[in-house]
Amino acid sequence: MVTTAGESHGLGQVAIVDGCPPGLPLSEEDLKHDLVRRRPGQSKLVTQRRELDEAQILSGVFEGQTTGTPIAILIRNQDAKSKDYSHLQNVYRPGHADFSYEAKYGRRDHRGGGRSSARETASRVAAGAIAKKLLHEAVGGLNVVAWTRQVGEIIADIGDPDLITESMVETQADGSPNPTRCPDLQAASRMYQAIDDARKSGDSLGGVAEICASPMPAGLGEPVFDKLKADLAKALFSLPAVVGVEYGAGFELSRMRGSEANDIIVAGENGLPRTVTNRHGGILGGISTGMPLLLRVALKPTSSLPRAQATVDRSGATTEVRTMGRHDPCLLPRFIPMAEAMVALVLADHWLRQSSVRVLSSP
Amino acid sequence: MVTTAGESHGLGQVAIVDGCPPGLPLSEEDLKHDLVRRRPGQSKLVTQRRELDEAQILSGVFEGQTTGTPIAILIRNQDAKSKDYSHLQNVYRPGHADFSYEAKYGRRDHRGGGRSSARETASRVAAGAIAKKLLHEAVGGLNVVAWTRQVGEIIADIGDPDLITESMVETQADGSPNPTRCPDLQAASRMYQAIDDARKSGDSLGGVAEICASPMPAGLGEPVFDKLKADLAKALFSLPAVVGVEYGAGFELSRMRGSEANDIIVAGENGLPRTVTNRHGGILGGISTGMPLLLRVALKPTSSLPRAQATVDRSGATTEVRTMGRHDPCLLPRFIPMAEAMVALVLADHWLRQSSVRVLSSP
Amino acid sequence: MVTTAGESHGLGQVAIVDGCPPGLPLSEEDLKHDLVRRRPGQSKLVTQRRELDEAQILSGVFEGQTTGTPIAILIRNQDAKSKDYSHLQNVYRPGHADFSYEAKYGRRDHRGGGRSSARETASRVAAGAIAKKLLHEAVGGLNVVAWTRQVGEIIADIGDPDLITESMVETQADGSPNPTRCPDLQAASRMYQAIDDARKSGDSLGGVAEICASPMPAGLGEPVFDKLKADLAKALFSLPAVVGVEYGAGFELSRMRGSEANDIIVAGENGLPRTVTNRHGGILGGISTGMPLLLRVALKPTSSLPRAQATVDRSGATTEVRTMGRHDPCLLPRFIPMAEAMVALVLADHWLRQSSVRVLSSP
Amino acid sequence: MVTTAGESHGLGQVAIVDGCPPGLPLSEEDLKHDLVRRRPGQSKLVTQRRELDEAQILSGVFEGQTTGTPIAILIRNQDAKSKDYSHLQNVYRPGHADFSYEAKYGRRDHRGGGRSSARETASRVAAGAIAKKLLHEAVGGLNVVAWTRQVGEIIADIGDPDLITESMVETQADGSPNPTRCPDLQAASRMYQAIDDARKSGDSLGGVAEICASPMPAGLGEPVFDKLKADLAKALFSLPAVVGVEYGAGFELSRMRGSEANDIIVAGENGLPRTVTNRHGGILGGISTGMPLLLRVALKPTSSLPRAQATVDRSGATTEVRTMGRHDPCLLPRFIPMAEAMVALVLADHWLRQSSVRVLSSP
Repeated sequence: MVTTAGESHGLGQVAIVDGCPPGLPLSEEDLKHDLVRRRPGQSKLVTQRRELDEAQILSGVFEGQTTGTPIAILIRNQDAKSKDYSHLQNVYRPGHADFSYEAKYGRRDHRGGGRSSARETASRVAAGAIAKKLLHEAVGGLNVVAWTRQVGEIIADIGDPDLITESMVETQADGSPNPTRCPDLQAASRMYQAIDDARKSGDSLGGVAEICASPMPAGLGEPVFDKLKADLAKALFSLPAVVGVEYGAGFELSRMRGSEANDIIVAGENGLPRTVTNRHGGILGGISTGMPLLLRVALKPTSSLPRAQATVDRSGATTEVRTMGRHDPCLLPRFIPMAEAMVALVLADHWLRQSSVRVLSSP
Repeated sequence: MVTTAGESHGLGQVAIVDGCPPGLPLSEEDLKHDLVRRRPGQSKLVTQRRELDEAQILSGVFEGQTTGTPIAILIRNQDAKSKDYSHLQNVYRPGHADFSYEAKYGRRDHRGGGRSSARETASRVAAGAIAKKLLHEAVGGLNVVAWTRQVGEIIADIGDPDLITESMVETQADGSPNPTRCPDLQAASRMYQAIDDARKSGDSLGGVAEICASPMPAGLGEPVFDKLKADLAKALFSLPAVVGVEYGAGFELSRMRGSEANDIIVAGENGLPRTVTNRHGGILGGISTGMPLLLRVALKPTSSLPRAQATVDRSGATTEVRTMGRHDPCLLPRFIPMAEAMVALVLADHWLRQSSVRVLSSP
Repeated sequence: MVTTAGESHGLGQVAIVDGCPPGLPLSEEDLKHDLVRRRPGQSKLVTQRRELDEAQILSGVFEGQTTGTPIAILIRNQDAKSKDYSHLQNVYRPGHADFSYEAKYGRRDHRGGGRSSARETASRVAAGAIAKKLLHEAVGGLNVVAWTRQVGEIIADIGDPDLITESMVETQADGSPNPTRCPDLQAASRMYQAIDDARKSGDSLGGVAEICASPMPAGLGEPVFDKLKADLAKALFSLPAVVGVEYGAGFELSRMRGSEANDIIVAGENGLPRTVTNRHGGILGGISTGMPLLLRVALKPTSSLPRAQATVDRSGATTEVRTMGRHDPCLLPRFIPMAEAMVALVLADHWLRQSSVRVLSSP
Repeated sequence: MVTTAGESHGLGQVAIVDGCPPGLPLSEEDLKHDLVRRRPGQSKLVTQRRELDEAQILSGVFEGQTTGTPIAILIRNQDAKSKDYSHLQNVYRPGHADFSYEAKYGRRDHRGGGRSSARETASRVAAGAIAKKLLHEAVGGLNVVAWTRQVGEIIADIGDPDLITESMVETQADGSPNPTRCPDLQAASRMYQAIDDARKSGDSLGGVAEICASPMPAGLGEPVFDKLKADLAKALFSLPAVVGVEYGAGFELSRMRGSEANDIIVAGENGLPRTVTNRHGGILGGISTGMPLLLRVALKPTSSLPRAQATVDRSGATTEVRTMGRHDPCLLPRFIPMAEAMVALVLADHWLRQSSVRVLSSP
């Protein structure tokens, strides 16, 4: 449903969203909300690069509704301080794609990581905002909500994931923005401290994001090659720093017995089968069961560090590198809207395959 | 590179492998080895269904070498005891795709799970054997080796994953076949006991498979949408019972600091950069670094159990189900060749994108 | 919707049809009709190779209906007289793909042209029979009918193409089979004579096939990259010997003025707009208008000739070649079911994109 | 290799070119040449809409060379006089996609035809300029040259198509621009008069474009599903007003005998086989032979006419329509760069599949 172009220090980010059905009300306002959530500079927990991230819709919308033809979105880069990066031209940063890009392309755009930069995700978050709106308006109020489940060793206590709303993720008890995006506010407070400590010591933290989508329609996904869990995993592993994905009870299931792991099936209110527990995470045989979709994504700690790290340069000589650019001490807060976007795009694609709706509304 | 067709109790399994370069020596013998490893009935740890799993190559090979045109593989089903399954026609088995298929298709082939059966993987293992041969012969001796890392609570001690060979996985100290496919033979012995205990008590166990590919070429993978880690994860999540995938140190990385997690870069023997440790698992920015590819896959315990489980039938009435068919008390031993096949197919695809080789040999 | 494998003298032809909706009644009988029409040996106008062309459905059908999962079709090769071709091993036949295959693959399967043989189309005709049945049963009785419009200089007089039925194409006035598949029986008689004359003189003839599909639903096709006319042309140019494709009045339109060429629009019986004439051929802007789809395909004369033709061998030495294998003196009669198959497959694909039907019937 | 977005009266046209190898020197200057050739307002033979058509490269180029990552191109729309079109909101223009779009999408952007406008091709011409440069620099000086072969009844005399250069197409004897883009200058003069007469009488003319690419590498194309002739035809039929495509001697071949049609093969200067004549047009079995690629494209006359044409409106009532917007009395002159662009994009794609070159130059 989406393709993109753009790198950290080029002129801008572009997304082309193809296949959105005609008749979805859409304006640039609809994209702003998630772009602001993804934007740098929101708190001291994230990079201080300044980007307005204003998205312009160039095509595919007429008189306030989608037309069914491709929607092009343009986000211009603004604060591209290339000089910050000139010292990185000939050196390989630990944890980064510097050498792998060179091995593939015989070169790399060393300014801010080029296309390997998380800046590239701005266009995907904008595209995902369209998918989220489509799912919410056309697929029975389906919501995709992500949150920070874990930062370093701190694990949040999330009761029923199906009950977490975006406002529980975004807001603290006093109504102020929640910089960690962890809805367990006690854990959130400790996470905040841990990230800030890491930042001050020139270090970084990883963590785990959790994503839930509900109410899910049953029957999305293909039986072998485009299993819903496979396409979601592919989409999430396309985001920077992702090192693991698991569904439902995930790796825990590998330690259970079948008699413990299987979710017992009962008749739901609508007469359709549902499971009492949701250890399976909403997908069986690659196809959604109608139970909430539940998955978790592990992120490594930010690779860019302001402290010296041992490495080599292009000539093979030993050297040190420290990243002077502006970076996030923990990726989780800004990762949340990225994860929601990718999950929403995949769900929208699979819903479009399976749906009988071709036109959403009349002009 | 591959598409397949076939279900548990149809006439057979078909794979079409397209894109294999011309000049690869290939015969049906080359497919036999991995098909035998995947085959049911090898030991009492696995299902007793009897399938010869003899693959016939119908096209794409001429005078003992691939021609570059599509290779069709046919594996006929033999021991398809449909009567074993008639009692499952109207009931939803816990942990299975029965209801999700019905939600999607308005029906299901209830004989042995239809296309959701692990039987479907026979054609993929055959296709994967071609990919493995291609990688080994054309990509610098690249080997893809998988093994059982964990069964239930038992975790194997695997020193350097790069040093594990297929014969260490397949053979016990006395030269006899290793039924668990765990190369830590002490752990393997405990795993054997645990699986056999689960079998006797009408239960099942899950576990974790680990896969390593080396020596890896650097530069495989695309920067955003077809990242190598994304395509590998998609391929592995297309296999039955997979609930999690992680690379390198995986979920452990989410608990580390950046200064611990980053792999220090040094100059390798060939002058190219390499990392001292391999917590990143061989991929950075979605592109291979040249370090060994290392990933792990979590499997839930087999959902089919011979003991009674509570569920509902199509009418919504509460009932019990016990699976009378022949099933594996633990999927790990037979999963190993499936995992190798899927990893090899993805690596072959990405190598073909990046390679400058178009013809492997002259006729 | 379809992929295939197989070459002239391998073990067989395979098609995998994916995406056929569940609930279509289907058996091997449904494939037989068009396979018999495509089969060699029907009359002295076509090659005398003997192939039963019996298709076996290996998967995707359960209790007489499609399940929604991939349908694999197997057609074994029978009369593969490879010895007929050994003299062609080192020589390039005029009009054939011998050298282009060698340039691409560094080799070729010289037995009967390998994958470049028209034998490869058997699997596509079988797949097309499924698409034709789907269109007829699920898309308002939509029929795809092709016929021989021209052989050499002889051009048939076809009144309203929309009124031509398959029985008018297949049957002569006395009820016997129509070997030319030209529904203008007077032209057909002259075509028969011309083809037989060409055959006797060791020569061959080309011609033009015409294809009409109606009643067409409006709204099939994409606006730019997958225009219906583009996908149909791609499908038809994938068939052997095709050298031109045109829609509606086709190349004639290039000689008209806009005021002559435009079809005037009036209100149809159902209130929807329709055109009085159909010079546009049923597609405007790449999307079907609801008028009958009308296109023509030019075929070159069969390249294989039993008479001597000048050429070179692999060493570059001048030589002569005459094709001793069994070949058609004119491809048109056997091309008709191939053209119908490819048009039906494309229409089915585009209908599936646009349709709101997901399940055709209950089990 | 390319996807696009944009419609006639939106904010702009966008192309994303993915897969261009790293190391191609590229700047916005490289795109200007063909955009100027396609631009409206060049002569009185074409529409007087004023568009600067300045393309901006937003990504994928670093220090003057391509990086291997996606190249985004933006062309802003300038002279979008939507008011010209308000009278078309409820009426179906003969020869246009008005009703087919409504049938598909339940609506249409009536301003200048929305996405069905030829304005959409600006982004493809820009993308094609990259493909043309790639082919010329990396594929042995391969040039793609198109010209006007026929306008209405006037057919140009083109000796050896392989010898036609772009400057013969673009320039008249006195060095001034050739408004018809027909290199037979005598025919060009008559074409000019015919188009101008049509324009004055409120009518339009169709014609035929011819395209030649040489020197062609042998071995491009796939044997069945992505035949080079199939992919080229699909690309050309994706352009507006195209009603026919033929290769080599094309429809003429349908009237020949095999002994006349086959091109005799001789040894070329490099020892490789070549044909004395080129009736086959450079492709056999779907794969290039190394002879010049030669094809022709039939265009219908412009559908938009300033004279009254009978039609119906949305309510089904009979009415008249005359197109007040600015349109071309003959599409051929501006079609020439579009045809070159689409042929170049397909050749580049197939060359990239077959090539052993992965990096074009060092930074």
